[in-house]
Amino acid sequence: MDATTLEKYLHGHIPLSAAMGVRVLLATPARVELAAPLAPNINHRETVFGGSASALAILCAWSLLHVRMLGAGVRARLVIQRNEMSYDEPILGDFTATCELEDESAWERFLRMFERRGRARITLRARLECGSRRVAGFEGDFVALR
Amino acid sequence: MDATTLEKYLHGHIPLSAAMGVRVLLATPARVELAAPLAPNINHRETVFGGSASALAILCAWSLLHVRMLGAGVRARLVIQRNEMSYDEPILGDFTATCELEDESAWERFLRMFERRGRARITLRARLECGSRRVAGFEGDFVALR
Repeated sequence: MDATTLEKYLHGHIPLSAAMGVRVLLATPARVELAAPLAPNINHRETVFGGSASALAILCAWSLLHVRMLGAGVRARLVIQRNEMSYDEPILGDFTATCELEDESAWERFLRMFERRGRARITLRARLECGSRRVAGFEGDFVALR
Repeated sequence: MDATTLEKYLHGHIPLSAAMGVRVLLATPARVELAAPLAPNINHRETVFGGSASALAILCAWSLLHVRMLGAGVRARLVIQRNEMSYDEPILGDFTATCELEDESAWERFLRMFERRGRARITLRARLECGSRRVAGFEGDFVALR
């Protein structure tokens, strides 16, 4: 799975990602980075619509899990169960989302649980940036189902 | 502000709402109801993408505040500060978001604080339904700024 493959997958299967102009900058098991331009995601204040910010963060965290599951050779349905977003600053232009796994041991527990029970949950965090400023934070719980 | 006016406003100022096919079913100070079709909001599992669910809930809660502020003759910038979403069930088809103010006294406090300080915060909840099933819940903090 490289950035181009993931981008085609997202645009082909989640049409909102194409409408948002989402681009995949990096897609590795260590880190996924997505970008989106302001124009299709703008709001009435000419900043990024909160729903777009939230959607980019969800896509980013889901993508990291997707890339990792493929890398581990595990087929699973990945479902978001809950998320929190904090909107720290208005997003004034093109923006990115970055998701990394902070705790490798959580990933190992997640995989073991999935293999044992066919169901496991993991919490991922993502951050949104505009220029080099952190503008929003995301935390989401995802469930993998056989 | 009626449903048609709000729908035009959303489509004109937040292009993602048009890409999502958002329709405004009801826009009153007591209650805002929005609807969105599955097709433009679908994901790789042929259910509604979590980012679309989240965006519809944010639009709905923001719209209730917007309608109420206009009704009260108050001009303010409304900014989302934080939100939580719980995705309770896969959303298998067209879906709606509904936001009502649960606590009229919270609104009165919010308006008084805004008038006194030029800044006030309020928490709103919205629910998403598909058919007659509740499928997701939203809670968000919004800030009004002079």
